[in-house]
Amino acid sequence: MRLLLIGFGVVGQSFAKLLLSRSTDLYRLYGVKPRVVACVDGHGSAVSTAGLNLEKLLEAKKLFGTVGAYDRSEPTHELLDLIEKADAEIAIELSPTNLESGEPGTSNIVASMKSGKHVITVNKGPLALAFPSLIELADHNDVKLRFSGTVGGGTPILEFAKRSLKGDNIISFRGILNGTTNYILSKMEQGLDFREAFNDARLHGYAEASSLLDIDGFDAAAKLVIMSNWIMGMKVTIKDVRRRGIGDVNLSEVKRANRAGMAVKLIGKCESGCLVVEPTEISSTDPICVNGTLNAVTFCSQHSGDHTIIGQGAGGVPTASAVLRDLIDIRTALLV
Amino acid sequence: MRLLLIGFGVVGQSFAKLLLSRSTDLYRLYGVKPRVVACVDGHGSAVSTAGLNLEKLLEAKKLFGTVGAYDRSEPTHELLDLIEKADAEIAIELSPTNLESGEPGTSNIVASMKSGKHVITVNKGPLALAFPSLIELADHNDVKLRFSGTVGGGTPILEFAKRSLKGDNIISFRGILNGTTNYILSKMEQGLDFREAFNDARLHGYAEASSLLDIDGFDAAAKLVIMSNWIMGMKVTIKDVRRRGIGDVNLSEVKRANRAGMAVKLIGKCESGCLVVEPTEISSTDPICVNGTLNAVTFCSQHSGDHTIIGQGAGGVPTASAVLRDLIDIRTALLV
Repeated sequence: MRLLLIGFGVVGQSFAKLLLSRSTDLYRLYGVKPRVVACVDGHGSAVSTAGLNLEKLLEAKKLFGTVGAYDRSEPTHELLDLIEKADAEIAIELSPTNLESGEPGTSNIVASMKSGKHVITVNKGPLALAFPSLIELADHNDVKLRFSGTVGGGTPILEFAKRSLKGDNIISFRGILNGTTNYILSKMEQGLDFREAFNDARLHGYAEASSLLDIDGFDAAAKLVIMSNWIMGMKVTIKDVRRRGIGDVNLSEVKRANRAGMAVKLIGKCESGCLVVEPTEISSTDPICVNGTLNAVTFCSQHSGDHTIIGQGAGGVPTASAVLRDLIDIRTALLV
Repeated sequence: MRLLLIGFGVVGQSFAKLLLSRSTDLYRLYGVKPRVVACVDGHGSAVSTAGLNLEKLLEAKKLFGTVGAYDRSEPTHELLDLIEKADAEIAIELSPTNLESGEPGTSNIVASMKSGKHVITVNKGPLALAFPSLIELADHNDVKLRFSGTVGGGTPILEFAKRSLKGDNIISFRGILNGTTNYILSKMEQGLDFREAFNDARLHGYAEASSLLDIDGFDAAAKLVIMSNWIMGMKVTIKDVRRRGIGDVNLSEVKRANRAGMAVKLIGKCESGCLVVEPTEISSTDPICVNGTLNAVTFCSQHSGDHTIIGQGAGGVPTASAVLRDLIDIRTALLV
């Protein structure tokens, strides 16, 4: 399978390493023989119809900060032009999430699908803003759109709900969808106030430039939108979410809840067609009451009861493994 | 699809009700049109190549205690003879679990497969005692053998591990695999001693005739064996499990663990090729540290980290929904 990598940051590089270390397995177990025919980052691009040497590609990125250094004889194309012309079956879109404009993700995905490429993305922006129309465009162009890594990082939350509960109906779901805010709230349970907890999260690398997206609940809302569309068959965007972040949660509130055997968590839920993200008191014995950066979701089903799935929810290698899962999934879907 | 139901207790009746209530959905979503052509319980049988009327079948069972009352004109066959001759594509084996002899489950499953029928079972006995040879027999007869309901009740633990983590490698797993013992240990945490907790479990209907299988860890061991074969590709039986039950766990031990932020749980684990079931102290913040009758399993994967799945783990309707899942799964596998 010929791949185009759009973006070569932490996830992209982890994905390249995963392909290197697992190539034998992938062929043996799934008949997948991936070949990266083009890779582009913010500063340049590398193209080879015979397939890029991934070790050399990683080296170029490491030494020169861009994959453009891979092979200087290649001309640099304009991005959308390169996407359109790349001789790839699957575009893997790994540009950073922007929940206001959705760009550059949306344009990259649209250009890929319009030129007949299946798309795998870990970018929440385009899906949070325009899930229904992107799915429609994929159908119209007869290509697959997959996005495992947008929810749960490497934890297969979307697959679990969509595949493992076949034959049952999911009625509602709710969960902790953002690791950064959960880390902050967990630290507040230990006695830190919001500011101290936030700084602690920064210190550990959990809260960065985009931390307002976490704190204000936008990241959780984006995931809620993706889940509601994909799992519940709704047609919603981030505008349909009633959202309140954790900025107002104070220490006394957290302590009071704690004394009552409860915990304050930023819960995203989809219930009776309503999407809500807000700080919520839940019982400390509730299976979704996890601490640290963990994510947790409970699906309530009609016949088989409640099912909870818990996982790390972020990280370069886990998210890259979600991309690989999507790759195998597309391969399998094409064979049927 | 023509079905043969072997056993018509709680799960069998729940399954029949599920077929009744979901028939439109099943056809619309999965193209499955199930028809029960034969049903047998401990006292009689009912056969109809045109398909039994499930409402009438449930009524016969309710009023007369046996499906034999469905249609008195039908002769009663000897069980294995009936299995062999039934004009069914899929045999659904729901006889009670026996972890010593595996019977009558094993004979029923073997007779079904030898006569070219796919098999769905919720009976742990045959699989715990002879998983490798049953899989071999299924392959030899070119039929499918499915057993979702044997682990986790309605919670799709086996599917999750096998399907949702495609492209990754599960290195080890551990979890709480038995609800009865977890209920007892949870009650002990609340201050009851073993005997009181056990009686409380009986009172709530969680511990019954077979409760020694729970207490001594045999039920957890059986599930561990099924998981290790199916998920890890091992070839093991219940004899390969190092097993210790909760009969020796005393209240002071539970309390001491509690004070240290830990909990004593009956943990089954598969690690470095070793299968162990034994009371183990785990951190109360460990995602698998659930209370009551819940089951919980953490899968440790090579690339995507730890994933925990939690669910009720038992019950008639949930387990029946697992049978339905297997039915859809077989239907899908046959179409590929």
